[in-house]
Amino acid sequence: MKHQVFFVSDSTGITAATLGNSLLTQFKNIKFEKLTLPFIDTAAKAQEAVTTINHACDTSEGQVFIFATIIDKDIQAIISQCKGVFMDIFNTFIQPIEEALKVTSSHSIGLTHGVQNYDQYHHRIDAVNYTLSCDDGLGIQNYDEADIILVGVSRCGKTPTSLYLALHFGLYVANYPFNEEELDKGSLPDILKPYRKKLFGLTIEPERLHMVRNKRRPDSRYAKLKQCSHELQAAEEIFVRERLPYIDTSNRSIEEIGATIMIQAGLKQG
Amino acid sequence: MKHQVFFVSDSTGITAATLGNSLLTQFKNIKFEKLTLPFIDTAAKAQEAVTTINHACDTSEGQVFIFATIIDKDIQAIISQCKGVFMDIFNTFIQPIEEALKVTSSHSIGLTHGVQNYDQYHHRIDAVNYTLSCDDGLGIQNYDEADIILVGVSRCGKTPTSLYLALHFGLYVANYPFNEEELDKGSLPDILKPYRKKLFGLTIEPERLHMVRNKRRPDSRYAKLKQCSHELQAAEEIFVRERLPYIDTSNRSIEEIGATIMIQAGLKQG
Repeated sequence: MKHQVFFVSDSTGITAATLGNSLLTQFKNIKFEKLTLPFIDTAAKAQEAVTTINHACDTSEGQVFIFATIIDKDIQAIISQCKGVFMDIFNTFIQPIEEALKVTSSHSIGLTHGVQNYDQYHHRIDAVNYTLSCDDGLGIQNYDEADIILVGVSRCGKTPTSLYLALHFGLYVANYPFNEEELDKGSLPDILKPYRKKLFGLTIEPERLHMVRNKRRPDSRYAKLKQCSHELQAAEEIFVRERLPYIDTSNRSIEEIGATIMIQAGLKQG
Repeated sequence: MKHQVFFVSDSTGITAATLGNSLLTQFKNIKFEKLTLPFIDTAAKAQEAVTTINHACDTSEGQVFIFATIIDKDIQAIISQCKGVFMDIFNTFIQPIEEALKVTSSHSIGLTHGVQNYDQYHHRIDAVNYTLSCDDGLGIQNYDEADIILVGVSRCGKTPTSLYLALHFGLYVANYPFNEEELDKGSLPDILKPYRKKLFGLTIEPERLHMVRNKRRPDSRYAKLKQCSHELQAAEEIFVRERLPYIDTSNRSIEEIGATIMIQAGLKQG
C-alpha cells in the first residue's frame, strides 16, 4: 500500500519537501508517493490544489499527508481546508518566534529561496563559475582566491562535492587530482605547497573506486582494483604525512561530505 | 541588536537550517546571527552544544533561537534542556505521522541526507558528470540522453541552473548557447531540431546581462548594453516562434528557476 504525500508551497516548495522528506525517511518500510505543488500563490491555484488533494483522499487506500509552507493568510485558509493529515509547517513555528521577538512577521511570499540580496546572490554564481574554472587541476593560477582546495585520486568525488559547496554556500572551491607520478613520489606536489592550509583530502573505498572507474573506462588499467588500492593507499599516506584533514566519501552523500568538510575546515555555515 | 540562532542536528543540519532560514526571512529588519551545529550524535557532543547555547543565552542582549532536528531520544533529551526559544522540528511532526500510519518511526540518525539507495545516489553523481560534459554546447552527440536542454544567449544563467537540477534532482541537463549567427538567422539551429521537445529557454533583463558580461569581459562589444538587448530580443523571438517554454531569470534565484522549469517542463519532483 502506498501513501500519498503532497508538498504544498506558495514558493518553490523546497522547505516543505526538505522537512517532509526528512521526516518520512524515519518510516523505512512504508511506501510514499510524493508530489510537490509549488507556486500556489493565488486563491484559484489554492482551490485547484485542494481539489487535487481531496481527490487523492477519496481514491487512495493509504493515508494522504500534506506538508505545507503557506505564508499568505488567505491562501493558507483555503489550503488548510483540505482533507488528509495536514502539517502546517509555517504557522506551527512562526508564532513562538513572533512572541519572542515581540513583532509580527511580514507574511510575504517568496522570500525563502528568492533573491533577497543581489551581492550575496551574485557571489554564489561567481563561486560556481570559479569552481568550474578550477575543476580537475585547472586554474591553478587562481588558487589564491580559493576558500578550499579538494585533493585526492581521480574519481573519488571531488567534482560533485566542489560544485555542491559552491552552489550552496558560495564557496570558491578548487579541486586537484593527484597523478601517478605525484602519488609515487609520496609528497605534496610543489604546486600545492603554498596552499597547504586550504587543502582537504578525499578518499574512498578501493572497491567503490574500482566500480566508478570501471563504468567510465571498462577493463582499463586505470580501473583495476589493484591500481585503485595502490593509488588510494599512496594518497592517504600523503594526507597523514602532511597532516591534511581528510574524509572517506564511500558511505556519505554529497550533503554529508559537504557538511563534514565545512566543520573540519572551520568554514562557518549560516 | 542581533539575535543568535542555532541549527542543531544529529546529522548534516540541512533540514534544520532550511526550515529555520525560511521562517527567519519573514522578519525583515531584524538581524540574526546563525550557527549550524551538525553531527551532534553523542551525549558528550550534546552536552557541549548545550553549554555553547546557554553561554549565548547568558551573554546575548537579543533572543536565542534553537531549531533542532534531533532523532535519537537520549540526545534529544539533553538538547531540549537548553535555554532559549527551542523549536523541536522533528518531534512536532513525527507524532501525527506515526498516529496516521499506526507505526513507530525508526528514530535512526543520518537517514535524511545520507546515502540510502546507492543506485539512486550514483544516478545523481552520473547526472552531474553528464551535465558537466554537456555544458555550454559541448557533448551534443549525447543529447539523446538529456532530460532537458537549456538554451539561451551566453551568460543568461544556463550553467548554474543546469548544475542545480543535476545535483538536486539527478536530471541529465545539457545547455546550449545560441551564437550570433544563429540569433541572426532567427530559427532553431539544425543541431537542436531533433530535440525540440527537450528544449527550455532562459532569458534575462538586458541591464543585468550587460552587468554580468561586463564583469567577465570589461568594455567589450560582447558586454555592450546594445549588444545584450539585441541578442536577447533575437533569442526571445526564437522562443516565441518555436513555441518553446522559457523564463526570465533576472529576479529569480537558482532554486526558483529550477522549480519553475520542473513544473513547466512537466518534470516530476518528489
